[in-house]
Amino acid sequence: MKKTQALLADGREIVYFDEPGSATRALPDPRDLAADRPMPVIRYDAVLDEWVSLADNRQDRTMLPPADQCPLCPSTATRHTEIPAQSYDVAVFENRFPSFAMAADDAEPSADPLSRQRPGVGRCEVVCFTADHESSFSALTPTRVGTIIEAWVDRTMTLSALPYVEQVCCFENRGEEIGVTLSHPHGQIYAYPFLAPRTRRMLDSARAYRERTRRELFADVLAAEQRSGERVVVRGDRWTAFVPFAARWPLEVHLYPHRQVPDLPALSGEERAELSWLYLDVLRRMEAVFDDALPYIAAWHQAPVGAGRDLAYLHLQVFSIRRGAGKLKYLAGSESAMGAFVNDIRPEVAAGLLRETRR
Amino acid sequence: MKKTQALLADGREIVYFDEPGSATRALPDPRDLAADRPMPVIRYDAVLDEWVSLADNRQDRTMLPPADQCPLCPSTATRHTEIPAQSYDVAVFENRFPSFAMAADDAEPSADPLSRQRPGVGRCEVVCFTADHESSFSALTPTRVGTIIEAWVDRTMTLSALPYVEQVCCFENRGEEIGVTLSHPHGQIYAYPFLAPRTRRMLDSARAYRERTRRELFADVLAAEQRSGERVVVRGDRWTAFVPFAARWPLEVHLYPHRQVPDLPALSGEERAELSWLYLDVLRRMEAVFDDALPYIAAWHQAPVGAGRDLAYLHLQVFSIRRGAGKLKYLAGSESAMGAFVNDIRPEVAAGLLRETRR
Repeated sequence: MKKTQALLADGREIVYFDEPGSATRALPDPRDLAADRPMPVIRYDAVLDEWVSLADNRQDRTMLPPADQCPLCPSTATRHTEIPAQSYDVAVFENRFPSFAMAADDAEPSADPLSRQRPGVGRCEVVCFTADHESSFSALTPTRVGTIIEAWVDRTMTLSALPYVEQVCCFENRGEEIGVTLSHPHGQIYAYPFLAPRTRRMLDSARAYRERTRRELFADVLAAEQRSGERVVVRGDRWTAFVPFAARWPLEVHLYPHRQVPDLPALSGEERAELSWLYLDVLRRMEAVFDDALPYIAAWHQAPVGAGRDLAYLHLQVFSIRRGAGKLKYLAGSESAMGAFVNDIRPEVAAGLLRETRR
Repeated sequence: MKKTQALLADGREIVYFDEPGSATRALPDPRDLAADRPMPVIRYDAVLDEWVSLADNRQDRTMLPPADQCPLCPSTATRHTEIPAQSYDVAVFENRFPSFAMAADDAEPSADPLSRQRPGVGRCEVVCFTADHESSFSALTPTRVGTIIEAWVDRTMTLSALPYVEQVCCFENRGEEIGVTLSHPHGQIYAYPFLAPRTRRMLDSARAYRERTRRELFADVLAAEQRSGERVVVRGDRWTAFVPFAARWPLEVHLYPHRQVPDLPALSGEERAELSWLYLDVLRRMEAVFDDALPYIAAWHQAPVGAGRDLAYLHLQVFSIRRGAGKLKYLAGSESAMGAFVNDIRPEVAAGLLRETRR
C-alpha cells in the first residue's frame, strides 16, 4: 500500500492510500479557497455531565448536490473537487465543515461548572472509499476493504498522537434517511477532545464488572453469545458477528474480534484479512433483509487514547433505522427525551433473518 | 373539570376529562376486539447499564391513516374509533400497541447479569388533546391546555400508584419527520418499570453537585440563566423558558417553574394557570422561527416514584430537529453511535430568534 500526503488549497491535509499498481497522484489543488475557517466550540452540560459540540460553521455545508457536482469525485480538467487527483483508491482529507478542528486551546478553564466552554479542538476527516460515485461499501472488493482498514489504522495512530485528542472514531453514515448529505461512498473519522459519552458508559460498566467479578465484561458478552448461538449471525476463525441481547435498533449487529484488543492498530494481519471479508458479509446480509434501500450507521468503538485502554474491547457496531420495507424506526419522545429505547424487532428474530438471507 | 371513566371493548381503560358545560359521554364500545394482547419484554444491556424495551407487538401499528379513518376522532353512528363518545374535550386511553403493559411480574431475576429479561410491565396511554382532527397543540386555548394539565396530573398520580411503575413521563411527538404515525393532535404517557436513563444521569449529576457544593443543581442552572439572560426566551412570574447553555438540538427550550417541585401534581393553582399560556407562547415562538412545519418533541421531566424525588426538579423540554427551512438535524454516527452531540446553531442565536419572533 502506498501512502501519499499533500495539502489542499486552504491548508487542509489530504492523504491517498493506494493499492499496488496505482498511478502516481497529481497533488496540486488549484482552487482559490479562504484559509480561515470558523472554529467550533464545545460546552459542558452540567445536567447530563457531557460535552456538546456547537458548530455553526456547519450550517451551510453542501447538501445533496447532483452527481456532476459531487465534491468527493476525482477532479477533471474542467472541474476541481475536494480531491485534486484524477483518480484514487482510498482518499482521506480534513472535513471542510468540521465539528472539531485544530486550534490552540489556551482558554482558561471556567471556575463556574455551569458555563464551561472550550474551543472545539480535534479533527474531522472524510474517508472516500472509492472513486466510483455510484458504488457503495458493500459493493467493494475485500482488497479494497483491506486498504480502508489500513487507512483507518493509519489515521487512528496519527490522530491519537495529536494534542487534545482523547478518542478516535471511524464510522460510516449511509442513506439520506439518516441525514447523509453526500451520496458518494464515504465514511468519516472524528477525533474527539473528550471521551465520547457512550464510551464512558461502556468503560464504567466494564470497570464495575471487573471489580465485581474479576472478569472482563466484553469478553464475557462475546463468550455468552457464542455459547448460546441464538443471536450469532456469522462466526469466523477470528471474529464473531451477533445481534446484541438488548439490541436498541431493528437491525443491529456487533462484530467482535476473538481477542481483546484496544483498537484497529492492534489487530494482527490475520485479523485484518478476515475482517475485510466478514465486514462485507455482515453488510450484505443486512442489506438483503428488507426489499428496500438500507440506511445504516457503522461505527468502530475504539479505546480512548489515555486512561481506560485496558478496559476497552475493539468492536464494530452496525445498525439500521429500517424496521420494514417503507418503514423506519424514529427516535421520538421515549428515546430522545428519556433515553429509553423501544425496539420493535426481537434480537433473535433479527438474527434469524440475517442468518437465512444473503444478497 | 369532569372526569368520566369507562372500558374499551378489549378491556383497556379510557378516561374523559371534560370542561364545564360539556355533554355527558356515551360510554359503550360496540367493537369486537380480541382481549389478549402480546406482552412486551424488557432486557438489561450490561454494556450500557440500561434497560431496553422489546415490543414486537408494535410492528403492525396503524400508520398514517387517512383523516376519515383516524382512530383518535370521536365515533360516529357509522364508524367506531378508539373513542366511543361522539365528542370529547380531552380523552386518555390505554395504547393498543404499547411499549409497556400491565401483567404479573413473577419472573425470577436471572442470576446471569448478561441475560436479564423481565416482562415489560408498565403502561402506555394516548392523550387526545381535542376532538378536532385538524387542530394542533399550539392552536388550543389556554383553557384547554389547563384541562390537559389536569389530565397529566391525574394520570401521573394514578400511574405512579401502579405496582412496578418507577417513573411517569408525559410527552408529545409532533410531525411525520420524527415518526408520528397519527396526525390527530395527541400526546402520550409512558409509565416505565425502570428509571429512564436520562433521568438517572440527571439525578446522578444533581446528587454529585449537592455533595460537592451543598447546593441544588437545577435551581442553580435556572438562576444562572435568569442572571445572564442571554438565553432566556420568555420569563413569567412563576416560570422561565430558556435555551440551555449546551443545547443539543437546533431549537431547544427548557421551561422551569421558579419553585423546585418534583412533578406536575405538586404544582400550585397559580403555577398551573401561568403554565397554560406560557406553554402556548413557547410553542408558538418555536413554530414561527422557520417558514416550515415544525416537527418537535415536548417531554415533561418528572421525579421518579421512589428514591431521588428530593433531587429532581420538574421541567419541560421542547426541541425540534428542524435546523432550517427544508433542513433537518439527523442523529448520525457521532450522536447515535458515540452519544456525542453536534449542534449547528448556537444557543444564544436560537434564543435571539425565539425572542424576536412570534407567530
